[in-house]
Amino acid sequence: MKIVVFGGDGFCGWPTSLHLSDLGHDIHIVDNLSRRKIDCDLGVNSLTPIRSIFDRISCWNELTGKNITFSNLDVANSFEKVLDIFTELSPDAIVHFAEQRAAPYSMKSAATKNYTVNNNISATHNILNAICLVKPDCHVVHLGTMGVYGYGTAGIDIPEGYLEVNVAGSTENQTTEILYPTNPGSIYHLTKSMDQLLFAFYAKNNNLRITDLHQGIVWGVETKQTLKDERLINRFDYDGDYGTVLNRFLMQAAIGYPLTVHGSGGQTRAFIHISDTVKCIELAVSSPPKEGERVKIMNQMTETHTVKSLAELVSSKTGAEISYLKNPRKEADENELNVNNASLISLGLNPTLLSDVLADEILDTVKKYADRCNTSLIPCNSKW
Amino acid sequence: MKIVVFGGDGFCGWPTSLHLSDLGHDIHIVDNLSRRKIDCDLGVNSLTPIRSIFDRISCWNELTGKNITFSNLDVANSFEKVLDIFTELSPDAIVHFAEQRAAPYSMKSAATKNYTVNNNISATHNILNAICLVKPDCHVVHLGTMGVYGYGTAGIDIPEGYLEVNVAGSTENQTTEILYPTNPGSIYHLTKSMDQLLFAFYAKNNNLRITDLHQGIVWGVETKQTLKDERLINRFDYDGDYGTVLNRFLMQAAIGYPLTVHGSGGQTRAFIHISDTVKCIELAVSSPPKEGERVKIMNQMTETHTVKSLAELVSSKTGAEISYLKNPRKEADENELNVNNASLISLGLNPTLLSDVLADEILDTVKKYADRCNTSLIPCNSKW
Repeated sequence: MKIVVFGGDGFCGWPTSLHLSDLGHDIHIVDNLSRRKIDCDLGVNSLTPIRSIFDRISCWNELTGKNITFSNLDVANSFEKVLDIFTELSPDAIVHFAEQRAAPYSMKSAATKNYTVNNNISATHNILNAICLVKPDCHVVHLGTMGVYGYGTAGIDIPEGYLEVNVAGSTENQTTEILYPTNPGSIYHLTKSMDQLLFAFYAKNNNLRITDLHQGIVWGVETKQTLKDERLINRFDYDGDYGTVLNRFLMQAAIGYPLTVHGSGGQTRAFIHISDTVKCIELAVSSPPKEGERVKIMNQMTETHTVKSLAELVSSKTGAEISYLKNPRKEADENELNVNNASLISLGLNPTLLSDVLADEILDTVKKYADRCNTSLIPCNSKW
Repeated sequence: MKIVVFGGDGFCGWPTSLHLSDLGHDIHIVDNLSRRKIDCDLGVNSLTPIRSIFDRISCWNELTGKNITFSNLDVANSFEKVLDIFTELSPDAIVHFAEQRAAPYSMKSAATKNYTVNNNISATHNILNAICLVKPDCHVVHLGTMGVYGYGTAGIDIPEGYLEVNVAGSTENQTTEILYPTNPGSIYHLTKSMDQLLFAFYAKNNNLRITDLHQGIVWGVETKQTLKDERLINRFDYDGDYGTVLNRFLMQAAIGYPLTVHGSGGQTRAFIHISDTVKCIELAVSSPPKEGERVKIMNQMTETHTVKSLAELVSSKTGAEISYLKNPRKEADENELNVNNASLISLGLNPTLLSDVLADEILDTVKKYADRCNTSLIPCNSKW
């Protein structure tokens, strides 16, 4: 298949591009390298020494003979060029990672709020709008987030995107399926909730075929492909804005920094290993909804944990101390989270669980590059 | 009160600004005159000879001694200047009309789709973001649309924004109130659905006080204030993009053009007279939600009619023929629509019903300016 990966230079996008290329798909990456540029603004670096997109691609070509092409393009602000991509490449499917993806960054300042809203909404809409004009049968696979569900709904299992309800007082006592009512906890999560409305509209009005993957928090660093050569190494974020909880704990443990738990740690979250992320995208790409079907929503996560239990697990393996800090987020101190992930499992996902791999692989990576860590960047300074 | 009217030069914005000024409020209009400029692009003119914003304002000042100030400002693309407005004026309330408001225009081309999404979302977000920084107690009154509800829900009355549901299979069989699941019929309506998510987030996360008025289709032209002098005349759109159904019928009847019914005419829609629009905004402004309350949603409409019954009413009064055309929209041929509008009625709205005024006032206006009509602009050319 011809597949365009929008945002194919990022933490999930890069290993996805390699995985799909490895499977024999013809991959074109579109990325404006915004993730690297935001690192410049924040004075941060990936802990791992990621190479330039050009070096990455030529290394992959040298090792495998497979060719990945690349356009440096701002999807949100160059509709005509997005149109050219679809006209010239006529992709069978696209994977859409081209959004600002950190909740703390999205809440950092008025400027990052505006950037996140404008970038994410325009990127998604430009892609959908271009597909309608040029390649209406192109399958859109979008990376959404478990965060659109919110985390406060006691007694209700999180379904895969749609919620069955009875309308109280309706004359016909019928059951309807509705998009799960979103309850986003940050501007970032809000944009993914707004994306859902864009997808629902374009699926209904233009019969676009869209899969929306509601992903949990990704942990891990490397995949089978990125491990082939150090020049293919994936990025690893440990800073307060872009680092995600489990990776941060492992990093902190490796360098002897107390594990930073915000609030009581009673927040339950959904997780997935980066190797499963790329597998899920493979499965999603190969199983598109039919034309005229509603948006296919699948929960892309494999297990849930409380933040506290993760910290305790890492602490017990490594001896690291745990430090309880004030929670900068407006969220419940504790919540239940029961998530249905039957769709991807039924398509063949075989989860890589935390208990299977955890520490060693990531701790080794982290220790190897520990001298690149700037500990002053570990605290989370975005508050909301 | 100090009130900023964003989009205060438009069809609803201008009479609202005058009405609020007449009540003694201190009014500042922010508008980039985009509605006039789109007329340039479409080769259309308001049937009524509207004066420049400068002439309008100076006429109002001359007649009443009241001062309305004005900034020519693109709310969607000048966050810093929006911030300046809030810093300098410190308004008690704002009314937000600054969005592209025609469904057919929003579906005209890829460019108008992009424009509608980018303009409407950024305008709303810039306003909310600026308020958080500078004037967090400023009450936001937003003009939404009945169209966010969609028109297909048989047996369910349309509530005021929130729907009471039972979650099927929930362990606790509790009733929850959720934002009514939107079902927008055009890109324009989609943006207003997305606005709702922005409002819900900012009300929850930043305790902003927000009122969202879900307005029906506005008919009529003049209000008490715009009638004071011809230089204050309100715009009247009759073209296929911006003209709304009842005003178009009256216009068509006046010039002997067959009334253009799209589809069977069985579509039921909600309506409100422009005089009631301005009254509703007065009521909304004077009754803000409390800090920390959820978004206050009120249905701003006074009656429902099928398109066919409106055509027959106009035909019976004027003798005009009815012409049934292919429906360019993707929508049900017929629908029921029972709308709850108790909030604004309880605040004191005394509806101006179609049966009370209808023909004469508008027909007189239309006849007076009939020579300004370009009949080639009457057909609706946007299809979806």
